[in-house]
Amino acid sequence: MAYELYYWPGIQGRGEFVRLALEEAGADYIDVARGPAREDAGVGALMAVLERESITHPPFAPPFLKDGDVVIGQTAAILLYLGDRHALAPRDAEKRLWVHQIQLTIADLVAEAHDTHHPLGADLYYEEQKPEALRRAKHFRQERIPKYLNWFESILARNPKGDKHLVGKRVSYADLSLFQIVEGLLYAFPRGTKTSLAEVPRVEALHQRIAQRPRIRAYLNSGRRLAFNEQGIFRHYPELDG
Amino acid sequence: MAYELYYWPGIQGRGEFVRLALEEAGADYIDVARGPAREDAGVGALMAVLERESITHPPFAPPFLKDGDVVIGQTAAILLYLGDRHALAPRDAEKRLWVHQIQLTIADLVAEAHDTHHPLGADLYYEEQKPEALRRAKHFRQERIPKYLNWFESILARNPKGDKHLVGKRVSYADLSLFQIVEGLLYAFPRGTKTSLAEVPRVEALHQRIAQRPRIRAYLNSGRRLAFNEQGIFRHYPELDG
Repeated sequence: MAYELYYWPGIQGRGEFVRLALEEAGADYIDVARGPAREDAGVGALMAVLERESITHPPFAPPFLKDGDVVIGQTAAILLYLGDRHALAPRDAEKRLWVHQIQLTIADLVAEAHDTHHPLGADLYYEEQKPEALRRAKHFRQERIPKYLNWFESILARNPKGDKHLVGKRVSYADLSLFQIVEGLLYAFPRGTKTSLAEVPRVEALHQRIAQRPRIRAYLNSGRRLAFNEQGIFRHYPELDG
Repeated sequence: MAYELYYWPGIQGRGEFVRLALEEAGADYIDVARGPAREDAGVGALMAVLERESITHPPFAPPFLKDGDVVIGQTAAILLYLGDRHALAPRDAEKRLWVHQIQLTIADLVAEAHDTHHPLGADLYYEEQKPEALRRAKHFRQERIPKYLNWFESILARNPKGDKHLVGKRVSYADLSLFQIVEGLLYAFPRGTKTSLAEVPRVEALHQRIAQRPRIRAYLNSGRRLAFNEQGIFRHYPELDG
């Protein structure tokens, strides 16, 4: 039975980390909320799950994944689940937890990237918080992007199995997520990110290698890959790129 | 061998979720950075681990836990690890992941609670972002606290094993963390939180039951429990409580 992924249509957002894992796994899945507006598809189907009182494990917010009767929310938890099922994480318990720890730090970075354009909160438009966004984005570009990228670089440099993957000698969902982070940062802050990437050659090489993996390349060239835009997490507002 | 917990001294912060799990487990642990300023204790010891280049799995930030040679960062990952070792999570894989999913949502709530007093960023003092904090705190009190608490209430109400625990019929680290969330919200926003808590009797009852667990009660009455204060995540600024 195909997985059902539930996420807001029209943006990559947090759902994209799940999509990349499903695509690399070659898994059969339905991107439910991008389907036609019927009872069992579209945003209505997503809202129906969020509001269904018979669900024992209700997700707090999208993305969430349905695997038969199992419903899982929280991006990192979904990836923990998929990692085991599709060999996108090591079997060894300590390394498996390490992949997850990296993913949780990526989640923190994603939240910070979102806050650059919405420092005052998601209940106001960007245009209503532009001075604060300018300040926040500057700090993010100058301090946070380098700090995170250097951390990923050090992980690659220290991997006992070589610097081709974050953990072990096979691709994991954390590698796929780091690819997506670099893509997103390059879209949102092209100037600042290119400067920072020049200092972390292992991260940049990983980013390029992931893009060339056959299933990922096919996905990126397909209609299933949405373009970045200014409704998502990574938004390109030139004024925020310094 | 005792666990070593590394977290900023002087605040409960994210370290407190780990402390509560260690205390409920009756585990032997050293709160390293609260020790005397020596080479192997105090903040110096914490910084030394963060900067040590020989660590294969470097944590990005505190808290992190050392269990012999194993170093684990990210609060939720530490709890995933401790949950398995100290029966603070179900053995069943699906329920175990559900506990973790709840914990990740608690982590989101913690980040939002922090942002109420630091909407413009952690690199400015509260006093430099007070108008923005007032606005953000109002939204948090009026919209977000009820939304999160209602979600926890629905989980308790839907638990097939009864409404005494979030998952299954035994205490999990998510129950301990929800106790801490209620404590923190009551400290930071006493007026707003009391109003919201009146609507979620199962959450309030869980909060009171956890406080009466023998090991937790002993911990809360000990010198090991730091008081809430205005350097932590949950800060009481009366003007932010409406």
